[in-house]
Amino acid sequence: MSEAEELGALRDQIDAIDQQIQQLINERARCAQQVAEVKQKYCSPGDSVVFYRPEREAQVLRKIMARNQGPLGDESMARLFREVMSQCLALEEPLTVAYLGPEGTFTQQAALKHFGHAVSCAGQISIADVFREVESGAAHFGVVPVENSTEGVVTHTLDSFVESNLLICGEVTLRIHHHLLTSEPSASVTRIYSHAQSLAQCRLWLDQNYPNVERIAVASNAEAARRASQEPGAAAIASEAAAELYALKPVHANIEDQPDNTTRFLIVGQQPTQSSGDDKTSILVASRNEPGALYHVLEPFHRDGVSLTRIETRPSRSGTWSYVFFIDFEGHRDDERIVPLLAEIQSKAVDFKWLGSYPKAVL
Amino acid sequence: MSEAEELGALRDQIDAIDQQIQQLINERARCAQQVAEVKQKYCSPGDSVVFYRPEREAQVLRKIMARNQGPLGDESMARLFREVMSQCLALEEPLTVAYLGPEGTFTQQAALKHFGHAVSCAGQISIADVFREVESGAAHFGVVPVENSTEGVVTHTLDSFVESNLLICGEVTLRIHHHLLTSEPSASVTRIYSHAQSLAQCRLWLDQNYPNVERIAVASNAEAARRASQEPGAAAIASEAAAELYALKPVHANIEDQPDNTTRFLIVGQQPTQSSGDDKTSILVASRNEPGALYHVLEPFHRDGVSLTRIETRPSRSGTWSYVFFIDFEGHRDDERIVPLLAEIQSKAVDFKWLGSYPKAVL
Repeated sequence: MSEAEELGALRDQIDAIDQQIQQLINERARCAQQVAEVKQKYCSPGDSVVFYRPEREAQVLRKIMARNQGPLGDESMARLFREVMSQCLALEEPLTVAYLGPEGTFTQQAALKHFGHAVSCAGQISIADVFREVESGAAHFGVVPVENSTEGVVTHTLDSFVESNLLICGEVTLRIHHHLLTSEPSASVTRIYSHAQSLAQCRLWLDQNYPNVERIAVASNAEAARRASQEPGAAAIASEAAAELYALKPVHANIEDQPDNTTRFLIVGQQPTQSSGDDKTSILVASRNEPGALYHVLEPFHRDGVSLTRIETRPSRSGTWSYVFFIDFEGHRDDERIVPLLAEIQSKAVDFKWLGSYPKAVL
Repeated sequence: MSEAEELGALRDQIDAIDQQIQQLINERARCAQQVAEVKQKYCSPGDSVVFYRPEREAQVLRKIMARNQGPLGDESMARLFREVMSQCLALEEPLTVAYLGPEGTFTQQAALKHFGHAVSCAGQISIADVFREVESGAAHFGVVPVENSTEGVVTHTLDSFVESNLLICGEVTLRIHHHLLTSEPSASVTRIYSHAQSLAQCRLWLDQNYPNVERIAVASNAEAARRASQEPGAAAIASEAAAELYALKPVHANIEDQPDNTTRFLIVGQQPTQSSGDDKTSILVASRNEPGALYHVLEPFHRDGVSLTRIETRPSRSGTWSYVFFIDFEGHRDDERIVPLLAEIQSKAVDFKWLGSYPKAVL
């Protein structure tokens, strides 16, 4: 056989496979429509039908990754099925997702990574607006950064949960890169601007490469880029987007000390999420400002061997001497071992709020 | 049956379908690997194997859209297969695509729309840099805007083709939205800044809503947003990204007169693309500045009934009194009716350059 014949035969084979895949995807879409019909049939009058089930999606993706034999990688395969589910869901109910904008932000990337590309994304100008859009029902879900300290937004997100009744129903992680930017790459750098958090994330690299250069913390990485564009000898640590906006050039790319510098986002919605079998729970606990307060809150987790994944402390707005702890731990509110633990913590705390149980990030 | 039983049965069915889809996708990936092996076997020493074939992808997507029976829409189905092909290709050869950055630009969106999400995207700070990356082989393909006049880049892209030997091997279209932004939504607007092209794209809306307000054309929409953020009473027409950067609020969203205000991008590469059966060709023709010059160039197209899709005129850099025409028309260089036509135009022109024949945008 010639090259053309060999390739022709393989392409015919691929076309035949594509035809089968296409039939199956449409068959899957019909099943999804039937799921919607069943849900509507059993829905009480006045209640709204919940089409999107985060725990079900997480389970499907985990199964796919577990049984995958290749040659496509597990992540690649899961991403494809994320898109298949996204398109099938759009048939039942086109989802609207509010995110902290503008277009092109990491938060939008997180929204698309979690929901696939068949949703309609609505960028909001503040975290409070994202919460309002979901509370009012204008959006089905919201996506907000929660560990993206460089933009100074973590605390806004946490504080929003104190006032809001929205629940966390998912999490997404993304990798983030920092660059050293100047307007004049050949000139020597006499000072480096950035948000304190970004300076911290690049500390080792700065110590090695610019040990004697002044580091100045400013309000945001965008502000740092603005200054670097105006002051001779100044450089900024910021993203590619900031480089373009202020016509800066990247002198060094990807200078963050941790190569997997990831940022975490939360999905917020109105409905509680059922157990997916591998979940996280977030709670808010207020305690008095007395010695050992945090220790007393954490003790039951330690005793029962429940892993804490994150703790944040915030001053409470309501009492002068009180603190609020935001605690993430492994497990679902309905898990057998978690039910008594939560009851115990609730009984000990001055104030307690369950913020949601949700599947761990799959991708 | 109860709701839970009915849903359980449907979900088992979906899981069974997913398993089949997954097997078929992996089978498809194995075929793609075999295609790569055949190509390598027949590749002459010193030549590099071409894995990505734009015409083949366009054909596959068109077939899928043509035979699609639903319930998933044709576009949704094609998008899914775009991603399947993207992941399969990444197994053969992970593609690097250079685009006009920064991250989050429309050009990046165009790159992902065309190549799917399994490519590695490298943002460049200028169109010249995109061309250089592809010419040097650092990137396999480049993506540049060609009808996105609001960023003032069209002419750069066209002029780049005069000097470069890169070929056009694809086109992508995207929808673009404009918003009216101010820092103080309650204050009255006394002047509106924007790029001339954006002012033109929103002219009817402005005539109706702000008939007596001064319109001032500035260098870019980002510059317009910057001014609106500093001058009381000033508004800007710009994107959502500009709104966030300058802390402006959208007073009115999507104010463009044409609801399908699309922008066109070109894919550039080193290899010519074979006929896909529904193609466009771009050429560059230089002619003397004499009466009827353009008419003489266009006459053969008219005579042979070949549709022109676009003509741009640029002053030539080489001669004082010459012009360069960039012409897009329907058909492929190898099509029977196009071969003699191109020969005729080439014989008439002072200078002639074939910039590429490529599949029409499928999605």
